[in-house]
Amino acid sequence: MTYTASVVGGSGFTGGELLRLLDGHPEFEVVQATSRSYERKTVGHQHPNLRAMDLRFTSPTELDPVDVLFAATPHGVSMERIDAFREAADTVVDLSADFRLGTEAQYDEWYDGHERPDLLADAEYALPELNRDNLAGADLIASGGCNATATILGLKPLFDAGILSGDEQVVVDVKVGSSEGGAGGGAASSHPERSGIVRPYAPTGHRHEAEIEQFLGCSVSFTVHAVDMTRGAAATCHVFPDGPVTKKDLWSTYRESYEDEPFMRTVAGGGGVYRYPEPKAVAGTNYGEVGFELDPGNKRLVVFSAIDNMMKGSAGQAVHAANVALGIEETAGLEFQGLHPVGAP
Amino acid sequence: MTYTASVVGGSGFTGGELLRLLDGHPEFEVVQATSRSYERKTVGHQHPNLRAMDLRFTSPTELDPVDVLFAATPHGVSMERIDAFREAADTVVDLSADFRLGTEAQYDEWYDGHERPDLLADAEYALPELNRDNLAGADLIASGGCNATATILGLKPLFDAGILSGDEQVVVDVKVGSSEGGAGGGAASSHPERSGIVRPYAPTGHRHEAEIEQFLGCSVSFTVHAVDMTRGAAATCHVFPDGPVTKKDLWSTYRESYEDEPFMRTVAGGGGVYRYPEPKAVAGTNYGEVGFELDPGNKRLVVFSAIDNMMKGSAGQAVHAANVALGIEETAGLEFQGLHPVGAP
Amino acid sequence: MTYTASVVGGSGFTGGELLRLLDGHPEFEVVQATSRSYERKTVGHQHPNLRAMDLRFTSPTELDPVDVLFAATPHGVSMERIDAFREAADTVVDLSADFRLGTEAQYDEWYDGHERPDLLADAEYALPELNRDNLAGADLIASGGCNATATILGLKPLFDAGILSGDEQVVVDVKVGSSEGGAGGGAASSHPERSGIVRPYAPTGHRHEAEIEQFLGCSVSFTVHAVDMTRGAAATCHVFPDGPVTKKDLWSTYRESYEDEPFMRTVAGGGGVYRYPEPKAVAGTNYGEVGFELDPGNKRLVVFSAIDNMMKGSAGQAVHAANVALGIEETAGLEFQGLHPVGAP
Amino acid sequence: MTYTASVVGGSGFTGGELLRLLDGHPEFEVVQATSRSYERKTVGHQHPNLRAMDLRFTSPTELDPVDVLFAATPHGVSMERIDAFREAADTVVDLSADFRLGTEAQYDEWYDGHERPDLLADAEYALPELNRDNLAGADLIASGGCNATATILGLKPLFDAGILSGDEQVVVDVKVGSSEGGAGGGAASSHPERSGIVRPYAPTGHRHEAEIEQFLGCSVSFTVHAVDMTRGAAATCHVFPDGPVTKKDLWSTYRESYEDEPFMRTVAGGGGVYRYPEPKAVAGTNYGEVGFELDPGNKRLVVFSAIDNMMKGSAGQAVHAANVALGIEETAGLEFQGLHPVGAP
Repeated sequence: MTYTASVVGGSGFTGGELLRLLDGHPEFEVVQATSRSYERKTVGHQHPNLRAMDLRFTSPTELDPVDVLFAATPHGVSMERIDAFREAADTVVDLSADFRLGTEAQYDEWYDGHERPDLLADAEYALPELNRDNLAGADLIASGGCNATATILGLKPLFDAGILSGDEQVVVDVKVGSSEGGAGGGAASSHPERSGIVRPYAPTGHRHEAEIEQFLGCSVSFTVHAVDMTRGAAATCHVFPDGPVTKKDLWSTYRESYEDEPFMRTVAGGGGVYRYPEPKAVAGTNYGEVGFELDPGNKRLVVFSAIDNMMKGSAGQAVHAANVALGIEETAGLEFQGLHPVGAP
Repeated sequence: MTYTASVVGGSGFTGGELLRLLDGHPEFEVVQATSRSYERKTVGHQHPNLRAMDLRFTSPTELDPVDVLFAATPHGVSMERIDAFREAADTVVDLSADFRLGTEAQYDEWYDGHERPDLLADAEYALPELNRDNLAGADLIASGGCNATATILGLKPLFDAGILSGDEQVVVDVKVGSSEGGAGGGAASSHPERSGIVRPYAPTGHRHEAEIEQFLGCSVSFTVHAVDMTRGAAATCHVFPDGPVTKKDLWSTYRESYEDEPFMRTVAGGGGVYRYPEPKAVAGTNYGEVGFELDPGNKRLVVFSAIDNMMKGSAGQAVHAANVALGIEETAGLEFQGLHPVGAP
Repeated sequence: MTYTASVVGGSGFTGGELLRLLDGHPEFEVVQATSRSYERKTVGHQHPNLRAMDLRFTSPTELDPVDVLFAATPHGVSMERIDAFREAADTVVDLSADFRLGTEAQYDEWYDGHERPDLLADAEYALPELNRDNLAGADLIASGGCNATATILGLKPLFDAGILSGDEQVVVDVKVGSSEGGAGGGAASSHPERSGIVRPYAPTGHRHEAEIEQFLGCSVSFTVHAVDMTRGAAATCHVFPDGPVTKKDLWSTYRESYEDEPFMRTVAGGGGVYRYPEPKAVAGTNYGEVGFELDPGNKRLVVFSAIDNMMKGSAGQAVHAANVALGIEETAGLEFQGLHPVGAP
Repeated sequence: MTYTASVVGGSGFTGGELLRLLDGHPEFEVVQATSRSYERKTVGHQHPNLRAMDLRFTSPTELDPVDVLFAATPHGVSMERIDAFREAADTVVDLSADFRLGTEAQYDEWYDGHERPDLLADAEYALPELNRDNLAGADLIASGGCNATATILGLKPLFDAGILSGDEQVVVDVKVGSSEGGAGGGAASSHPERSGIVRPYAPTGHRHEAEIEQFLGCSVSFTVHAVDMTRGAAATCHVFPDGPVTKKDLWSTYRESYEDEPFMRTVAGGGGVYRYPEPKAVAGTNYGEVGFELDPGNKRLVVFSAIDNMMKGSAGQAVHAANVALGIEETAGLEFQGLHPVGAP
């Protein structure tokens, strides 16, 4: 069976990634991609990898009826246009932050409030690994944020296993690529200023902190650095479990959480060059890698988590969620294994 | 129908790329990957993108019988082991230079001679765009070299259309990524020395010159530079046609050559950021892009050609050739459209 | 003796480089740096390496009287404001293209004409290696363009020695860094789109062609590619001398031209990693490196030339020219030897 | 007055940086650079930026008598050859870890013991900002490690001001460039594997932890990641002060510690692109930048510290220490302000 799909906000990086995935997906047919700025241009004009795709951007003001609408628009657009989205589609998958948090109070605290607090309870948060059961049949899905996804994937098994209770100190130090700045970019995103950096771009107060705290139930000390890659988010989580923890405990904890997950891999030590998770190993894919190391002298446990922010952290996660929502094979359209070697992912 | 396949030399970059492609190919099943250095290690040990693949390297001394054997070994190995390869497989696809040239004299001039000149006439050179008809049913295939492929794809249509005759001056200035140096590398390949370079790594006398001259029938002034990317080969061909040439002529020339080719695209001007071929736009894919610009003041025609050296310039081309040889759909296993954005490809 | 100096257009990359050089120069004192957009901000606000410098940008409309005014403004500004510049300073060094060409006809052909053709004959072109004698005491200096400088430095000795006469085919294939796009930049300059590229950014018709042809007296087939570095211009010149040329000829040719030049080095073969000129080896310095290789089979001579486009190709050259004009030690303020290793220069 | 100097281990990255600095230093004359592997080669053979320097490597077995000997040898060499070093020179500056720690017990715990524990008490640790008074006249100086230096510079003012007592949780998450791996490098350092990474290269147990704990008197949870740059170390220190802290407190704390320091800058917020310390802003210089941000919700203080690991973290620090030891102007030979823009530093 084939589902029709549209991408609202198709000219941005995330929109392009959705178009790539949906075009190669066995069960979806893309019928519309909107772009205010590039109306009537081919999608290949913005996304050179899609030069072979026969589709032109149309105005976002007229939405075709589809089975699934993916909204890849900046924060604030979905909450404003949500009625039009839901009218056009049975299932809406929103990739922005507009429906990720559960209460208006959270939006007042972390964002500039919310225009449609009445709908917040309707939306299902999509980290399928976290919330798969609720996604089946969902009609409004809020796809999880990239840095939140990396963090939650790394830490959640520790909470599930009782290694962390939520009272411990949790420091999360994230490193991300330039695609998180979007296709626009300003002076700070220009190549001469952006290349080779280790730049504290959200030293404190990153909005994804709210998502993490909502879903893990603990406070996190969260800092995000921009480094020289285009794709990728790597979260290093420094945590301090109360009780004793062994490597064996950790292996069984992560195995229990992820051994049946089609997109999760545990990488911790071993030989070769790639001994821990790193974004380069998952670039272009929907995989998430998690790993860990113990630091007994400091009673510390370090958890590493790596994803491609455009995939597992955004478009891939959205397609994964749509697959679950519609009852399609979870890995459909997401089989790409990634490249080796690849430069800056 | 499924064909069994093996990769000899599976731990190198090209071997890994073959394993990735064959593992995702609907008609192939990988039964063996050999590696002298990493015997008994998983393929994921060397190729982090293949961590999910359940296969371990075995010794190259015992070859399993297969339908197709891909040899991804250094120059000189295939000519030495060719009898064993052909005994193990009905079809041998060699990715080295060992069977690309037609005569022993060429190997004496460009390499250190040849051990099996008796077999040179048996081998079919694989640029499918150049030599498709001879590949069907071939049992010994010499997959074309990366820099030669980029150059030939850019220039061949000009010869076919009579815009070039072979007597003109042809300067080819190639820029390549670090994967061409292989997985080993020495001091010059180390990150601190290799990053950010524009290094004349084959100022003159590059061996691919022989391939180009053999298949285009003209002399080329060939220079290769290493630049900061891992994948990719971009050939800038400066040619000086005798007669008048218009843009319209060029568009129809390239259309005629490539409009039915599943992996070729012509990109010449137009809007957006990616107006000409560049490796980044085809990274990870089997596509080749060609484009051109006229310089009337100098009676010059500049042709740009870009491929992923690991794909269209190596493993992808080899799988494409095997598809043709076995009568499989040409694009099978090679459908990946590439990523945007991607850092250094 | 100390000369007062000002930089008009101080917030751009070239302006910042001038400020760095002049601030560290034993004979100059910077009294003014102008910027329309960053008036009253410290120079460190735009140039983080100059955070220790105690100077704020002022409006370009009021120019302080100085001994030397450096104009680092976009093309077209100097020709418009030249009277004000000359009123403010005894010596004006213009880093734009406004006074590089000799005739109005050239500006009509390559640019959009010229507002002050009456002054073109007054200006001295500054490649000190080309035109040192005329620079002494000059009051209007047009500092040579980056890509033209790289090319001229590579080829000029061949003309001086009679190895080239001007009738031969000359192909110049240049690779440049992102700083050539300036501090503004657009979509094509954003990090995700600009990293890892080999992009034909001036396939034909680059304006520096006019400078090269003016000073070498020959036509050049000129193509410029953008690659992944921020600083640097590398020119590969493919030339076809009529008569026989040996390596020994070339060594003596380049020695004769450059052995007394404080900023020129010949690098051609030898051992180690850096056997030919490359931008990385001269990043941050005012050095130019030239080298060569013979290709007897094609009767070709390949000349490599590498500079830092911000230094020898711009601000360094301007300071060098000012040193010559004022009779200061030529290397004053330009002694920096560069770094090793350095990433993308 | 001029002091004679030698560099033992001159062919490595740190050795080359020392040679560059000493060659440009007004008070030093380099009389010997040793290299076992490159004996009789010019220093420019290994360090292309030093092609103009007229010096050849000699065997390390015969040391010339000098005023100051800089040892840039791998860990373990200095402790073995220290008698020869001290016989050759009045002042020995060791850049390895061999004399940084105070007791044999520490070497037993963190390294493989020590051959000359009798000398540990004689050595002065060189972070001049930490230990300036003891360096004057010192004859055995242990120059601080790069990652330790970055960390100590960031945190020390907080201890001095009583904001931290040593009992609090301190997490230090460091990001470093590829030059830390040295000129040799293995598979993990090759460009294709090393570019674009965020790699946990010392997840726990990094030996610099010992230095930090020795000089700060507190435990640190220390993790080091390799990212895509060649030079640079950026330490992000997540600390949790017991009492209330304001931005004003922090500004006055850092001002008090560093306002008279010639190489320290505090960068915390403000406008422009570079609002916090980052390695790119200090690449090639001896500057250290520190900055901070408060996270009241988590009672956290985040301190950022950035240095060039080859300079402030190694060769620059060693020269700075020698300047102090000999009573030379502290900034002599270290005046370089750095470049903007610069790619990967």
